Amino acid sequence: MNFELQPHTDAGHRFVTLAEEYASAFAASSEKHDRDNSFAAENIVALRKSGLAGATVPEELGGIGVERLVDYVAGINRLGRGDGATALAANMHIFLTWFVAREWRRARATEDRPRIAQWEEMLRDIAAGRTILSALATEPGHDLMHVVTEATRTTGGWLLKGRKGFATGSPAADVFVVACRHRNDNGEWRYSAAYVRADSQGVTNMHNWDALGMRGSGSHDVVLEDCPVANTDFFDVGPWGAYNEDFLAGNFAGTLGLVAVFLGIAEAARDITLKILQGRRATASRKAAIDRSAIHHIVAEIEIDLSASRAMVERTGTMMDAFFAAQSPTGNLPLQEMHEVMKDFQCTKWFVTRKAIETVDRALTLSGGAGYMSRNPLSRLYRDVRAGPFMQPFSPIEAFEYIGKVTLGVDPMVEL
Amino acid sequence: MNFELQPHTDAGHRFVTLAEEYASAFAASSEKHDRDNSFAAENIVALRKSGLAGATVPEELGGIGVERLVDYVAGINRLGRGDGATALAANMHIFLTWFVAREWRRARATEDRPRIAQWEEMLRDIAAGRTILSALATEPGHDLMHVVTEATRTTGGWLLKGRKGFATGSPAADVFVVACRHRNDNGEWRYSAAYVRADSQGVTNMHNWDALGMRGSGSHDVVLEDCPVANTDFFDVGPWGAYNEDFLAGNFAGTLGLVAVFLGIAEAARDITLKILQGRRATASRKAAIDRSAIHHIVAEIEIDLSASRAMVERTGTMMDAFFAAQSPTGNLPLQEMHEVMKDFQCTKWFVTRKAIETVDRALTLSGGAGYMSRNPLSRLYRDVRAGPFMQPFSPIEAFEYIGKVTLGVDPMVEL
Amino acid sequence: MNFELQPHTDAGHRFVTLAEEYASAFAASSEKHDRDNSFAAENIVALRKSGLAGATVPEELGGIGVERLVDYVAGINRLGRGDGATALAANMHIFLTWFVAREWRRARATEDRPRIAQWEEMLRDIAAGRTILSALATEPGHDLMHVVTEATRTTGGWLLKGRKGFATGSPAADVFVVACRHRNDNGEWRYSAAYVRADSQGVTNMHNWDALGMRGSGSHDVVLEDCPVANTDFFDVGPWGAYNEDFLAGNFAGTLGLVAVFLGIAEAARDITLKILQGRRATASRKAAIDRSAIHHIVAEIEIDLSASRAMVERTGTMMDAFFAAQSPTGNLPLQEMHEVMKDFQCTKWFVTRKAIETVDRALTLSGGAGYMSRNPLSRLYRDVRAGPFMQPFSPIEAFEYIGKVTLGVDPMVEL
Amino acid sequence: MNFELQPHTDAGHRFVTLAEEYASAFAASSEKHDRDNSFAAENIVALRKSGLAGATVPEELGGIGVERLVDYVAGINRLGRGDGATALAANMHIFLTWFVAREWRRARATEDRPRIAQWEEMLRDIAAGRTILSALATEPGHDLMHVVTEATRTTGGWLLKGRKGFATGSPAADVFVVACRHRNDNGEWRYSAAYVRADSQGVTNMHNWDALGMRGSGSHDVVLEDCPVANTDFFDVGPWGAYNEDFLAGNFAGTLGLVAVFLGIAEAARDITLKILQGRRATASRKAAIDRSAIHHIVAEIEIDLSASRAMVERTGTMMDAFFAAQSPTGNLPLQEMHEVMKDFQCTKWFVTRKAIETVDRALTLSGGAGYMSRNPLSRLYRDVRAGPFMQPFSPIEAFEYIGKVTLGVDPMVEL
Repeated sequence: MNFELQPHTDAGHRFVTLAEEYASAFAASSEKHDRDNSFAAENIVALRKSGLAGATVPEELGGIGVERLVDYVAGINRLGRGDGATALAANMHIFLTWFVAREWRRARATEDRPRIAQWEEMLRDIAAGRTILSALATEPGHDLMHVVTEATRTTGGWLLKGRKGFATGSPAADVFVVACRHRNDNGEWRYSAAYVRADSQGVTNMHNWDALGMRGSGSHDVVLEDCPVANTDFFDVGPWGAYNEDFLAGNFAGTLGLVAVFLGIAEAARDITLKILQGRRATASRKAAIDRSAIHHIVAEIEIDLSASRAMVERTGTMMDAFFAAQSPTGNLPLQEMHEVMKDFQCTKWFVTRKAIETVDRALTLSGGAGYMSRNPLSRLYRDVRAGPFMQPFSPIEAFEYIGKVTLGVDPMVEL
Repeated sequence: MNFELQPHTDAGHRFVTLAEEYASAFAASSEKHDRDNSFAAENIVALRKSGLAGATVPEELGGIGVERLVDYVAGINRLGRGDGATALAANMHIFLTWFVAREWRRARATEDRPRIAQWEEMLRDIAAGRTILSALATEPGHDLMHVVTEATRTTGGWLLKGRKGFATGSPAADVFVVACRHRNDNGEWRYSAAYVRADSQGVTNMHNWDALGMRGSGSHDVVLEDCPVANTDFFDVGPWGAYNEDFLAGNFAGTLGLVAVFLGIAEAARDITLKILQGRRATASRKAAIDRSAIHHIVAEIEIDLSASRAMVERTGTMMDAFFAAQSPTGNLPLQEMHEVMKDFQCTKWFVTRKAIETVDRALTLSGGAGYMSRNPLSRLYRDVRAGPFMQPFSPIEAFEYIGKVTLGVDPMVEL
Repeated sequence: MNFELQPHTDAGHRFVTLAEEYASAFAASSEKHDRDNSFAAENIVALRKSGLAGATVPEELGGIGVERLVDYVAGINRLGRGDGATALAANMHIFLTWFVAREWRRARATEDRPRIAQWEEMLRDIAAGRTILSALATEPGHDLMHVVTEATRTTGGWLLKGRKGFATGSPAADVFVVACRHRNDNGEWRYSAAYVRADSQGVTNMHNWDALGMRGSGSHDVVLEDCPVANTDFFDVGPWGAYNEDFLAGNFAGTLGLVAVFLGIAEAARDITLKILQGRRATASRKAAIDRSAIHHIVAEIEIDLSASRAMVERTGTMMDAFFAAQSPTGNLPLQEMHEVMKDFQCTKWFVTRKAIETVDRALTLSGGAGYMSRNPLSRLYRDVRAGPFMQPFSPIEAFEYIGKVTLGVDPMVEL
Repeated sequence: MNFELQPHTDAGHRFVTLAEEYASAFAASSEKHDRDNSFAAENIVALRKSGLAGATVPEELGGIGVERLVDYVAGINRLGRGDGATALAANMHIFLTWFVAREWRRARATEDRPRIAQWEEMLRDIAAGRTILSALATEPGHDLMHVVTEATRTTGGWLLKGRKGFATGSPAADVFVVACRHRNDNGEWRYSAAYVRADSQGVTNMHNWDALGMRGSGSHDVVLEDCPVANTDFFDVGPWGAYNEDFLAGNFAGTLGLVAVFLGIAEAARDITLKILQGRRATASRKAAIDRSAIHHIVAEIEIDLSASRAMVERTGTMMDAFFAAQSPTGNLPLQEMHEVMKDFQCTKWFVTRKAIETVDRALTLSGGAGYMSRNPLSRLYRDVRAGPFMQPFSPIEAFEYIGKVTLGVDPMVEL
């Protein structure tokens, strides 16, 4: 039997099959980009050409048609096995596409023709490989709900000003989705989102990403200096500094996708290690590796953690799908229930990203020193996988507070 | 949303609903049986009368009709929340019934009329509350595949001789399913199973169960001294000392049910503790419990482990159901694939029973000493939950060896 | 080599030798007191007669003369191996004696003749086995620095009123040391200590201890109802609700002694288990226990934790001794430095009591079910050892907050 | 109070003081050597000039005079805080020197004049900074007791042939100590040690070290191709493939020194992180870092692990010192007792190197992403610290087997 993450629909199967096909190619160039600290640009080209970039574009608009998150994570997981850095960039784009497709469905439900047209154009461009999306969300020193990149109103639109970090995939992005804030007519801060072309005036990619791992992900800083945005590309999302529906809904998909990437890295480390162990024959002083009980013990620890991780990712995806399926396509999302889903998801996120780190660590132990050498891919996976817990939302520190508060019925927004 | 284990079919829903109804009654008498070290006989009477004892009897034979394991575990889980000791006894009976129902289906597929009649009678008796089953499997010093209780051939049948331990639910059992061995015509040891009425000649219940926890489970020793068995109640199962299909298939259901019991205990401890915490108001020197971040941290640890545990139990149940659904009703089961399913299940078993222990331990910590008092149910749950890892197959020591071997492609039967 | 806790002085050697002698006798009656929930009164008689009760009485006053904490913990540790409940009661008395001896030394340094005489009388009584001390400190719902047992001034003395819990050893106590509060002349709450004879008017032992473990420790509630105290037996200790020197100094000794008890329990569990394993011979289906690598693994985990625990207890004892040795016998103790010592100690306390629990748990696992039976001492140790983290100061919840605050330079008294 | 590792003698104090002085200089160039994968040659020059290279040379021969291991580890620990790679190279040299000094003392006890002269010359050269030692021990695929580098007898000496890995500090070494094997007159394999000048004929340094971390340590492969050794520089140590006294004695010092290095790395990570946290002020959405309880929790986990680690290193050093002090200077060392010491030490090694990894991991978590950037030293420490468990003897896999066997009284040499 196959205990891997499995897609539940045909669209999911198509996504997974394609992702598996490209993952091995991505794996081949991982070492080079890691060593050179260079962006894996050719992999993004492959995403455009292969149709993978349109994974979450509806079929009628030319995409693969993945809508359910349980399918989404199965495909992203396969990309993560190939190359973590590319998978991060791909996930950034594919989850934003998923969100746009969701907006398109809502527009159709409310028969909002201008929006339908706007989203259809974007989704067709994505399916055709013409548009890659990237999010400009994170800002150093501010959490995601307290961004200070500012939008100020001008004639016919807005101007953006701020500095963003961790813009994964940014070197290949055609359009940035920018999290910002603006004041409404009452002078209150509002949370807003703006779609900005990467070649717009005032957008500067700093090309300064240099980190322990995920070196090929192009997670540069991007500076916005009076960058213009049309009114139709600007959206008021909710009150600034508070949870809102879109924030949670978007992060369900995007961050669960990230979790699936780190599971994929752990699975790759496991597979590499089993191959090493199976190749170690008996010597005068030693049994073959596969006959040593002390090795069985550590292998079992890996299997237990991977088994738990897969179960959690699949269950969280299924739960999120059930949550969305239960909502009216035109109504608001229930915030309290979203916190419950988010709480469950945060359990999954912390557990899986943590266990992925432990799995790669155990793989190193089993490798007996071989994995510590730069030429061994485990030495890269050990660095890549450590990025997992930092992915927002939430960091481990915040996650424990959040899970505890929601469980005990305390407002998660209140700082105690 | 509800993140508990959920049934997937109507039969499952009926089982869960009924189990929830009775669980609270069972909980009420837990303390007494624990204190007195007495068997919870009245709970087994309730199982008979309520129809719960027929949970896995097919509907057309008068039962609830649960066939899928994912439903099975959801119902057993609810019993575990009420009273662990009763849930163990109930699971012993319900899994044996599930196995008999499986045999009935196989007999129908092969049109084996005598067997169809034999199993139908038993299943109807079970559904009507007339027959409770219990297994006589464990023997001190021997693992489950190397039992030494011996069947010797006599005119028209067999005589059993041996001593069994951990006969959970035995005081209420009407029929024992005895794991034993016999020699075939070539003088080779074979693994065998015999159905024996509890009031048969030569069957002595030692009524000697006295343990740290699960005190109401009646897990006594039972001695068999020249106990007669008819040929029709005696089954050759496979070679002695080796894995066989029935052994694995039966344990999939039975042991996964046990795992669901321990998950239920952990859930009960969590619920008791949240109630305690929510009742602790602020004092001059202390914030309210629910406002303390150090408490959030431990609550979050509980939530993470319960979330992972539920996901694993559900996924393993689903996988087992898929495995059985893929088999021909008349053919043999594929042993190698069963080891893979068993490996995945052992990951679940170890993880969930271990995390259940840790959850009750954390509940004690959160209780701040209150849970250490005998009058607090946590002090019982702490003892009950520790039984989890001992449940066979496998103990933690064996499980790590088994998981490691199967993963590395080493025969799990070979002692290295 | 002997890796156990070792005494560093002759007095320490005498204490350890005597403790080892009596520990085995105490072990013999553990099961009975545990089963009957009865106080191990005969063990306290043995402490009186053997001279063990005078462990920390200076030699010139008839005692064994243990002054250094590194010696203290070595002796208490041996008692813990014999019987945890008796060791708790013994530690309660021996640490209070240590504290009185310290007061006696300070009185001599300041030539405070009345106090010298008062303490000498008490210490001689203790050495002669006439006086056993017990502390009335804990109150449900209040931490140790916020006790609400109240002393009100009367002519020539004070009246005490309050209810105390966890009065370990109280059935045998001759004198209680009561933590209470009173108002000074400015109406401010002060923290105070009173010495009260157990047979005083207004003192009622509720004889209501009934817990998961440590059942022979007599940790009853004691009610004080207008209990009179002479002025000479009443001490103003410092501001109420704040850390003070005596509180920290006393707890250094007393709580470190408790930690040594739980280490002793873990060591006992380890020894029992090794004996079980060494007795398990090979069978047809199994290697001998000592030849199984999966068993080596768990044994190694026990050894690692015990090794770390012993090292921590010894180092903390040595550090505390160095701290006290560096102080002027007449001056105040430096509170900030005491917090640093306390922080280090809390690391030890949490680690050792936690690892003791894990060690007994692993012993149960290694026992393979045998330890779960009531007749096996592991089933008692599993319950006794769980008391460790509850010992004050601090609970695990408080300890993490305290250690974090002191490390980061935040006032540990401030609730954040 | 100071809870760091403290020296116990004057020589130890001198070593620690000097090590602290140089550690900060070493820290300054760490980033460069890590980035360039270059050997920190200038640090070895500093060791020669400063006298640190003579740490374990007896005072009468011009050295610092450290003999006790508890002093040794305190000094090496400080070097580890500065730069792990340099500390590894320094430890390689200083432990070999310690071993030579031990041989010198034994030669003096037995009045073996030629050896006294030989060792004195070497020790004076070391003290004067003229000689740096490095060991050629490890061989891929063979454990330390089964090396296959072969010495064959020639007229007046030996020829060495083999390939060694992990020759830490080799670019600066003047003399290599080579672990090899030879046949004795009966044709039996014997374990042997040879002293070889680095510039000897047949010695080729492959300069091929390229690893995840410890990049400045110069741990290259060295190939020996018919490299000549004089008889006086060649030592028969014991039977090949078996434990022997010199092997254990040498590794006591050398590997405990390594452990102290990894403790130093963890301490450095902790200090960097506290500084980061103390600098993080409150914002609109966030308390200051030092006021957040979730941060206290992780800080406390670090403190607990460091506290345990320091206690274990100090206790193991003290135990080893006591072991050596109890031996006759001319007699053999008791092998069984050495296994007990080794077992205790392996507990320390596994625990401390493991907790060092966890500490740096927690430091990364506390850094909130900042530590993941290449410019932050935590990103280097995360890679350096992972080398710890690989240090021989033993790897984690072997250590658990070894500890388990010795504890259970099974011969640690026997493969089960």
